[in-house]
Amino acid sequence: MAGNTFGKIVQLTSFGESHGKAIGGVLDGFPAGIPIDFALIQHELDRRKPGQSKLVSARKEPDKVELLSGVYEGYSTGTPIAFLVRNKDHKPGDYDHLKGSFRPSHADYVYHEKYGHRDHRGGGRSSARETVARVVAGSLAQMLLREIGVSVTSYVSAIGNVNLQKDYVECDLSKTDESPVRCPDKAASEKMVQLIENTAKNGDTLGGIIKCIIKDVPTGLGEPVFDKLHADLARAMMSINAVKGFEIGSGFSGASMKGSEHNDLFAEKNGKIVTQTNFSGGIQGGISNGMDIYFTVAFKPVATLMRDQKTVNTEGEEIVLKGKGRHDVCVVPRAVPIVDAMAALVLADHYLRNRASKF
Amino acid sequence: MAGNTFGKIVQLTSFGESHGKAIGGVLDGFPAGIPIDFALIQHELDRRKPGQSKLVSARKEPDKVELLSGVYEGYSTGTPIAFLVRNKDHKPGDYDHLKGSFRPSHADYVYHEKYGHRDHRGGGRSSARETVARVVAGSLAQMLLREIGVSVTSYVSAIGNVNLQKDYVECDLSKTDESPVRCPDKAASEKMVQLIENTAKNGDTLGGIIKCIIKDVPTGLGEPVFDKLHADLARAMMSINAVKGFEIGSGFSGASMKGSEHNDLFAEKNGKIVTQTNFSGGIQGGISNGMDIYFTVAFKPVATLMRDQKTVNTEGEEIVLKGKGRHDVCVVPRAVPIVDAMAALVLADHYLRNRASKF
Amino acid sequence: MAGNTFGKIVQLTSFGESHGKAIGGVLDGFPAGIPIDFALIQHELDRRKPGQSKLVSARKEPDKVELLSGVYEGYSTGTPIAFLVRNKDHKPGDYDHLKGSFRPSHADYVYHEKYGHRDHRGGGRSSARETVARVVAGSLAQMLLREIGVSVTSYVSAIGNVNLQKDYVECDLSKTDESPVRCPDKAASEKMVQLIENTAKNGDTLGGIIKCIIKDVPTGLGEPVFDKLHADLARAMMSINAVKGFEIGSGFSGASMKGSEHNDLFAEKNGKIVTQTNFSGGIQGGISNGMDIYFTVAFKPVATLMRDQKTVNTEGEEIVLKGKGRHDVCVVPRAVPIVDAMAALVLADHYLRNRASKF
Amino acid sequence: MAGNTFGKIVQLTSFGESHGKAIGGVLDGFPAGIPIDFALIQHELDRRKPGQSKLVSARKEPDKVELLSGVYEGYSTGTPIAFLVRNKDHKPGDYDHLKGSFRPSHADYVYHEKYGHRDHRGGGRSSARETVARVVAGSLAQMLLREIGVSVTSYVSAIGNVNLQKDYVECDLSKTDESPVRCPDKAASEKMVQLIENTAKNGDTLGGIIKCIIKDVPTGLGEPVFDKLHADLARAMMSINAVKGFEIGSGFSGASMKGSEHNDLFAEKNGKIVTQTNFSGGIQGGISNGMDIYFTVAFKPVATLMRDQKTVNTEGEEIVLKGKGRHDVCVVPRAVPIVDAMAALVLADHYLRNRASKF
Repeated sequence: MAGNTFGKIVQLTSFGESHGKAIGGVLDGFPAGIPIDFALIQHELDRRKPGQSKLVSARKEPDKVELLSGVYEGYSTGTPIAFLVRNKDHKPGDYDHLKGSFRPSHADYVYHEKYGHRDHRGGGRSSARETVARVVAGSLAQMLLREIGVSVTSYVSAIGNVNLQKDYVECDLSKTDESPVRCPDKAASEKMVQLIENTAKNGDTLGGIIKCIIKDVPTGLGEPVFDKLHADLARAMMSINAVKGFEIGSGFSGASMKGSEHNDLFAEKNGKIVTQTNFSGGIQGGISNGMDIYFTVAFKPVATLMRDQKTVNTEGEEIVLKGKGRHDVCVVPRAVPIVDAMAALVLADHYLRNRASKF
Repeated sequence: MAGNTFGKIVQLTSFGESHGKAIGGVLDGFPAGIPIDFALIQHELDRRKPGQSKLVSARKEPDKVELLSGVYEGYSTGTPIAFLVRNKDHKPGDYDHLKGSFRPSHADYVYHEKYGHRDHRGGGRSSARETVARVVAGSLAQMLLREIGVSVTSYVSAIGNVNLQKDYVECDLSKTDESPVRCPDKAASEKMVQLIENTAKNGDTLGGIIKCIIKDVPTGLGEPVFDKLHADLARAMMSINAVKGFEIGSGFSGASMKGSEHNDLFAEKNGKIVTQTNFSGGIQGGISNGMDIYFTVAFKPVATLMRDQKTVNTEGEEIVLKGKGRHDVCVVPRAVPIVDAMAALVLADHYLRNRASKF
Repeated sequence: MAGNTFGKIVQLTSFGESHGKAIGGVLDGFPAGIPIDFALIQHELDRRKPGQSKLVSARKEPDKVELLSGVYEGYSTGTPIAFLVRNKDHKPGDYDHLKGSFRPSHADYVYHEKYGHRDHRGGGRSSARETVARVVAGSLAQMLLREIGVSVTSYVSAIGNVNLQKDYVECDLSKTDESPVRCPDKAASEKMVQLIENTAKNGDTLGGIIKCIIKDVPTGLGEPVFDKLHADLARAMMSINAVKGFEIGSGFSGASMKGSEHNDLFAEKNGKIVTQTNFSGGIQGGISNGMDIYFTVAFKPVATLMRDQKTVNTEGEEIVLKGKGRHDVCVVPRAVPIVDAMAALVLADHYLRNRASKF
Repeated sequence: MAGNTFGKIVQLTSFGESHGKAIGGVLDGFPAGIPIDFALIQHELDRRKPGQSKLVSARKEPDKVELLSGVYEGYSTGTPIAFLVRNKDHKPGDYDHLKGSFRPSHADYVYHEKYGHRDHRGGGRSSARETVARVVAGSLAQMLLREIGVSVTSYVSAIGNVNLQKDYVECDLSKTDESPVRCPDKAASEKMVQLIENTAKNGDTLGGIIKCIIKDVPTGLGEPVFDKLHADLARAMMSINAVKGFEIGSGFSGASMKGSEHNDLFAEKNGKIVTQTNFSGGIQGGISNGMDIYFTVAFKPVATLMRDQKTVNTEGEEIVLKGKGRHDVCVVPRAVPIVDAMAALVLADHYLRNRASKF
């Protein structure tokens, strides 16, 4: 009800504030018998963490995860998997200047209105540090998906006004992590790096777009009415900090197409029913049809600027907010493992939900 | 779990197939003491129903709703409100030619894969006729929102490649229903009508875009992590048949803006804290901030064409599907009350959820 | 949240007031491909309905069920099964004398306090007529259980101070419905009938006890912590009108036994692991172990007496309530199909839930 | 779905195995602004922990709780409260002899069947050590109830065949903790102690009964159909390890009473509507009526004996299980804070749920 739990069978309950003791979560409903790949968890956390390159925030978070339960002798036991990442890099007083002020386009004001009493330090619960729990749980979901051959891969397709023009089928997605901005195309990646560096000089920030592709999905995942597979993916993505838009398949461009252009005609291929095009994005009527699922997610620019901004304090008085601290110019590259994680959680959940569909 | 229930406190459970006996639903968790406006329910159903103008499907559905419970002497009682709309216009045999075939970009194939056994007539449960239940429940939610002064208004902002260039603040939204395509701008509306008529001549179909505006929302609605207000709105919208994209506030265009352009600076106005711009779309950190909430929803073109299309049957053999029956060229105008309904359900639910936020 | 939905995968949402238009429900999450036995539904409804013998209420309710969705060509389709039983025997004015008064040990007062506005006629939503929906849904659940060989059987083991002394293994449960009080033992049944007749003469009422036995349950059903199989059975039973107590296995008598007496020793029998005694009642650690599940449910006496009773009205003034109308002296025999129904819903739900336990 | 979450608004998600790294939980939906009484949490944990007297298990568990989130400057913030109790007293190898064997009336066999792969050490997740999380969360719920003046108090009313004959109104419940068995009556307490000591000598074990009283409950808590207040209390209690029975109000004895004896007549007292008797146990139609809520909970005897027992191993072969280790003869006194905790969680949840009942 307070919305810190995600999923219906595979359920992540997340907790923790940015500058509290720890961030963590409990993954319940994860079936017994899945081999646990501890290195994958850390690898995904490392992809999310700040300080990976000079392009991103220098805040040092070792982000070592501790698994507390639900795993025994290398396999899941079917009981809740609890995990914890201690917050380390916390200097008391760092955020005192924010106590009474509402930072523009942050959640300070709405938390103040909703709860009355809040932990203001570093955004508290509204900080993107909360996504640490998503990444850990998502990596566990990836282990389940691995067992059924499903792969989830995301990459950056735009930063600011630099757009990757190629479609995903033209890219070598295995090269994504070679790019400091996680764009698999070398030329586009270089332009994005350039843009970030220039923007940093002005104390300004950038948004961007991530594209996610899910391959080898069994047919039949997703529920037909309210819990359509792409509706749950949309909610998952829109629940990530800073996300403003979501498209599945043809997306907004589909709205201007004709039916005769957009319809994905069925064909038989090697004894399997496939579609000749895939404007549906691998989902029809809310249910996976076995083709690639692909979608895009739009991120607004980072709200914390290295510039002065006018705002108001809790008394409604105008104040000037100084730009200081350690912050990313653009978080989109670091959001790639978060998109992967949320997509994996949705797919794993619907995979198990579908077990109850027929007798 | 099978996804026919929507909402956490105000919960709609929907049922019914296109050519079964009835479509209906149960709205549970609707508080006692709300005056029930029966005329509004019928008015919204009439806005959704086919045959409103020569532009839309000629199938005759009187769509009279019967309330079965939960209302006594004109007020809600706090117990479940069940309702029913009988299906009338059903000719047995009408859909026999579809029994073994998978219509392109319909849900026939995925239902066949997921359930094995399905009611194929008119799309069965995957038919947009299912949205009748959403519209009835949404009109009840509107009655609750009325009590707290919240208004929900949607309109068509694009059909095919005809886009309304004006922003919503420049439009007189009270004029929306005067347009046969529910576009509040006369010039754009006429172009859209023209486009629909031309497309119909070719047996082809169209998609489009709906914009929704929610005004006078109290601050504090929405939950901070997974159940962000816009995440729940996204899921609600993406669960509507044919929807492919969702944007809140600046949406995809926000991805290419700078932080210094996108940040909504706070100001004090008449003793109230407001933002000077509203790229956030009235929601920050997943929680309403009191500004207008606005979002857009993209619909793909109708999948049923009045043309022959190649497809396969349940045996995987290639067949030709004839274009016949009574179908809309463009359903987007009829989807306006559905968008209103789903938005109202989300807001009513979060209004009640927020009652538990603080002591 | 308002508690009119039961179950997590197989979910019954129930609606309807005693003297409103109809009682009904929606059963969602029922898997596709189960053969639907329409006669069984009506048979179970007939077992519940009043007027079966001179011993029970003479109110005439034909109670014919109409299925509205989710069934096609004799099989479930995996979509919601909605059903409806119209209320027929309704004389307006019958309940006018109750409008402002709070009947003792009824829900009138608490509904008044909780909702402010309520349908007082015949108890409204608090009437046991609500259980019609449970019986219909439960008979559907029985159809699923039939496919996996599980049987659910209940009988009356006590009415007032007449107790059946025999254990269930000594009774021929196939004879239960031959008894007008649904007690499988002839001698006990006759004493119970006698007691009901004598009590009726005094305008007084009776309670009693129902015992339920579930046989051939697969091992592994039930979840280990909060959703223990017997915890969900307890909640299901305690949610039936007039129920005051629940025992699984040894129950309250187990509290006074020694561990050495109570422990169910394991043994191997025909290649299967069994227990030599069954004080556990077929459930250990919340999970079925393959032995018979058995439990008892205590019902308080009917609150509506055919005698005058002192009470208060909505103004808090003392009034005298006349004993009139058509009412059962003892509802326990009619509650047998309700206990069966709720048990079947719990088992069917946990059967499907268990499909997600291991990989 | 896997049943490690309890509650609908105030939701406890529990995790941890007996001999894993830690036991803990996340309490979500706890409203902002509640003062946190850290001493109360530790006090309740101390009441549950082993080694309180020579009567109970000597296993040393310091059981110090660490709060990880959701509390700031002494008040709840409305965000999830995560907490952790490290397991300390763990000797590797202690449980090796149990690896392949199924202890009688333990959950070993059913876990083996359900999950395939399990942590067998000390019962793993099926251990009563799991209740540590309930006690921490329950003490937080008590802090909420304190704010609205509700009190929850439990005591031991029977151990083995020693029953406290007095009703709760005749006892001074403030004296409960002065008794080593938590029975507020001195004479009965002494007999219980004697019984435990004698039973210990024989290597045998005992069960018992706990009674819980909830005072000053607002009217209107509980939902009318499936989520009746006493149905949720029943489920909460039956979910505690070793519980076999639950009674509310008159309970099983109500089944043999006449309606004229059992009906609780209403009266007006100091401008408030009360009942003259309270066989209903403070709940009518599933909703609190303002009178004392009281119920009893039956616990079976401890399954681990200090005697040899015959059983089978995972191969189905007969083996002899030695009685060894550190175990309680009777856990009922230690279960008192667990009953308190679960009752408090149910009441706090329904208090917040009821906020949505009327407009």
